[in-house]
Amino acid sequence: MSSPGLISFARGAPSADITPPEALRRSADAALRKDPAGTLAYGSGAGYAPLREWIAERHGVAVEQVLATNGSLQAGMLLFDVLVRPGDLVVVESPSYDRTLLGLWERGAELLAVPLKEDGIDVGALEATLEAGVAPKLVHVIPNFHNPAGCTLSLEKRERLLALAAEHDFIVFEDDPYAELSFAGERLPTMLSQDDSAHVVYASSFSKTIAPGVRVGYLIGPAPLIAAVQEKAVNTYISPNMLAQSIVAEFCHSGEILESIENVRAALRDRRDALIDALGRHIGDEAAFVVPKGGYFLWVELPEGVDTEQLLAAAGDHGVTFVKGSDFVLGGGQNALRLAYSGVTPDEIEEGVKRLAKALEEIKTAA
Amino acid sequence: MSSPGLISFARGAPSADITPPEALRRSADAALRKDPAGTLAYGSGAGYAPLREWIAERHGVAVEQVLATNGSLQAGMLLFDVLVRPGDLVVVESPSYDRTLLGLWERGAELLAVPLKEDGIDVGALEATLEAGVAPKLVHVIPNFHNPAGCTLSLEKRERLLALAAEHDFIVFEDDPYAELSFAGERLPTMLSQDDSAHVVYASSFSKTIAPGVRVGYLIGPAPLIAAVQEKAVNTYISPNMLAQSIVAEFCHSGEILESIENVRAALRDRRDALIDALGRHIGDEAAFVVPKGGYFLWVELPEGVDTEQLLAAAGDHGVTFVKGSDFVLGGGQNALRLAYSGVTPDEIEEGVKRLAKALEEIKTAA
Repeated sequence: MSSPGLISFARGAPSADITPPEALRRSADAALRKDPAGTLAYGSGAGYAPLREWIAERHGVAVEQVLATNGSLQAGMLLFDVLVRPGDLVVVESPSYDRTLLGLWERGAELLAVPLKEDGIDVGALEATLEAGVAPKLVHVIPNFHNPAGCTLSLEKRERLLALAAEHDFIVFEDDPYAELSFAGERLPTMLSQDDSAHVVYASSFSKTIAPGVRVGYLIGPAPLIAAVQEKAVNTYISPNMLAQSIVAEFCHSGEILESIENVRAALRDRRDALIDALGRHIGDEAAFVVPKGGYFLWVELPEGVDTEQLLAAAGDHGVTFVKGSDFVLGGGQNALRLAYSGVTPDEIEEGVKRLAKALEEIKTAA
Repeated sequence: MSSPGLISFARGAPSADITPPEALRRSADAALRKDPAGTLAYGSGAGYAPLREWIAERHGVAVEQVLATNGSLQAGMLLFDVLVRPGDLVVVESPSYDRTLLGLWERGAELLAVPLKEDGIDVGALEATLEAGVAPKLVHVIPNFHNPAGCTLSLEKRERLLALAAEHDFIVFEDDPYAELSFAGERLPTMLSQDDSAHVVYASSFSKTIAPGVRVGYLIGPAPLIAAVQEKAVNTYISPNMLAQSIVAEFCHSGEILESIENVRAALRDRRDALIDALGRHIGDEAAFVVPKGGYFLWVELPEGVDTEQLLAAAGDHGVTFVKGSDFVLGGGQNALRLAYSGVTPDEIEEGVKRLAKALEEIKTAA
């Protein structure tokens, strides 16, 4: 394939072919037949009750611990509104999701970046910092198939992080939108499920398991904290989208979601495989990465001295794009880039990596 | 009819019988057939494009001036996030919508309350204040079928307010969710449509013309300001609910909305008539009010000395409820109450007013 159009490894979003419009049509029809009043009223600021019940059952928590929101970014922002005051210290991973960093920064948080390893956040470095007297209010962690790094937090580190949270009394914000997208099907237990001291707030979303346009996410945490976040939600938008949440609830209760997750997983696994294969053939050893075991993203480190801002400009000329690494860190990342394989087919991946390799050759020759 | 259940004049929401679930089922089906990709993707932070186009055409503005949001309360909050800094002066009507007052207060605004007259905000009082050197950044006005006061801003006052905004350089926030609910069908021009100096930001919603559960509202204003609000929206929730906005867009473009508006208007007119009739027969001259020409609300003033907080408690014992006037003002309002007739049928209204009259007798006897 040789397409003149732009190939985008930039957006962390699924291509339209892996979203389920037919199944959602069935769910919309059923939702408006079965519960027209609940679907069309303002409803609770905590979200549509049957959806909260489904989420609560899936995570083995009480319904009072669940707040369904207009997407999980908003869930995080509402949580920050309640928890974070100007000057509060928040630990973030480096690299991390840029919108989360911006939301914390906008609320005046002091950010302390702890590096990611192949098995997730460097818990040893965090522990040393805590023992030196640093006292964060919140530690933000993306445990599975990290955005942008692609890595997964090990079981041992999950346990250590929980123990540290209890000992040093901070909240772990377990930000887990990619949880269901494990290619091998295996799942490590969430920190939420292991938390016996009310130190975890968990967030996830239906953006990756159904489609981003449904804009339904959720927060799970200690009931008093969730009640405080609900009050903030009510003052912001009265209630989240009942129509969308009722359709999503029907999609979940009817079992359509299981098929949707299987379709998405299979497509993403093929795309990851195509990307790794193409990188090996067209770029080779210069591209270092941890193979993601699920999710949307591959984080690539190029040799020291390669500037991915320069590469991005050259790539644009060749009809391919990505997000440069420096967008995801508080400093550095010049030789890194994030390749999202969620929105491109295997054919597009092959062509896109070819173009990327040409752009890389070009900037190396020019240097 | 004599029902033991609670009759609520409290909630400003339609009863389920005046929402259109069947038509929305058709719209959902069509939306997901015609534009599955656009309906299910993240989309623009400014909202679903075909919906923005419909709104822009209806108001005679450019699409760049329209931001579709998750309900109009959130539209206002995003606007306040962009415009209002702690210590900024904001003029509000007295009485006004309690959630707007809270949102301004949470953002540190200084509130100056200007009384409402039968024909809307006391523009003369506002003008005197402005000439005394008071310089508000924003003036919040609910022009049509006011919540809670039921009154409508006269044409002359709209023109004076616009002239003052241009002269004293403040933004008029024209908060207009009830615009379509005129019982006589007549409409005064919006201040937005008369604004030739970029001093008006307009907000409205589909909560009253379709149903609250769709949670779709919008903001119209000068394009640079709308772009700033859009940036804030993106950082808060990436994009608003595309699924709901696509369904609403289909509902609008197909013409279903015209029938829905007619149904709602007719039902609300009957309910207003039933309420006024019942108040006359059961309470009489002690209840003073301006007859609303549209919308959801009747604002009642009882004789001086009647405490509607006390009345609310007594009413609860009789199985009827409302919102007391003091919730809508910065001070005072003790003898006022808001009766929402949107969520109750004419039969329920008759029974509810009977109960209210009994409660009123009771507290007068006890006094």
